[in-house]
Amino acid sequence: MNILEKRILDEGIVLPGNVLKVDGFVNHRIDPEFFMQIAEEFKRRFQHLDIDKILTVEVSGIAIAFAVGLAMNKKVVFAKKNVSKTLGDDVYKSSVYSYTKGVTYDVMVSKNYLNKGDRVLVIDDFLANGKALEGVYDILNQAGAELVSTGILIEKGFQNGGKRLREKGYEIESLATIKSLENGKVEFENSVDF
Amino acid sequence: MNILEKRILDEGIVLPGNVLKVDGFVNHRIDPEFFMQIAEEFKRRFQHLDIDKILTVEVSGIAIAFAVGLAMNKKVVFAKKNVSKTLGDDVYKSSVYSYTKGVTYDVMVSKNYLNKGDRVLVIDDFLANGKALEGVYDILNQAGAELVSTGILIEKGFQNGGKRLREKGYEIESLATIKSLENGKVEFENSVDF
Repeated sequence: MNILEKRILDEGIVLPGNVLKVDGFVNHRIDPEFFMQIAEEFKRRFQHLDIDKILTVEVSGIAIAFAVGLAMNKKVVFAKKNVSKTLGDDVYKSSVYSYTKGVTYDVMVSKNYLNKGDRVLVIDDFLANGKALEGVYDILNQAGAELVSTGILIEKGFQNGGKRLREKGYEIESLATIKSLENGKVEFENSVDF
Repeated sequence: MNILEKRILDEGIVLPGNVLKVDGFVNHRIDPEFFMQIAEEFKRRFQHLDIDKILTVEVSGIAIAFAVGLAMNKKVVFAKKNVSKTLGDDVYKSSVYSYTKGVTYDVMVSKNYLNKGDRVLVIDDFLANGKALEGVYDILNQAGAELVSTGILIEKGFQNGGKRLREKGYEIESLATIKSLENGKVEFENSVDF
């Protein structure tokens, strides 16, 4: 069992509808020291790759992507979900359907910060149905950037996103993969110690 | 001139309507190493204070708050703007009017992550009209938590937020204070070298 899986077991709460609540250390309260330990594991897995920048999606990907960027000394770009005065219109954009919320939203990256030929590591906190990742991959494709690999904190292995994307050839490294949340109990698969 | 002011001059773009675009290093693309340098300056200013945790507001406060939390070894809580399944109903909530967007939105913090008596350092990226900060202060008040101080990356000194809040007795440390953006030219005031 690795430090992330241990923390999920200790502090995660299973809510109805296969929701795993980890907002005490991932997406509401954050423990920076812990995220730096996690980032070191991502670094161990990705440091042999030639990477120009890291791409994540707001909101909850930002902190872990920052930690990985710091550990690997790379700049971090976060795709935006909201239009703003400073973002402007000159963006790569992709539509993402959220099963959790039942809505479609856009993810956008300014053309200033993603260039043709950029070698990009994608980092995000959750992988479930994979729709957000597909939006990010679509943006990389529009930009002519190269997807080097993808690092995920927590993958819901019992949903189909990771399986489907890997079958398409995407390389995805998940630090904790959840096999089941049945009966309020968290079970992992493909566990790697760190 | 400090390193933040220098970067604003080098890379910031003044848009119509007194908008300062710094999304190349603050709120779209982030340079983690640079934010850690900034965080060291916040640490220098706040390390004599007794602080339990850091509070910021999603989205663009997260990265700088993470950096400060890492530098000062404190956990970071970010106030949420969107309801989610994991957030639940048991929250402190305050309404914030955004002059920029002309809309009112809620900021929310789970009651699990803010306790009576907590000594809280507030960190955010921008201070303009001060409405977002007032929402955060309101939440701290609801929780019975104690506001220790506030650290801001960029204050628009020509707007009234900082002045008004300081007159009310709030202590706010801004690393770069903009006196004017007139004619597309950035002018600072109260500059402190670091």
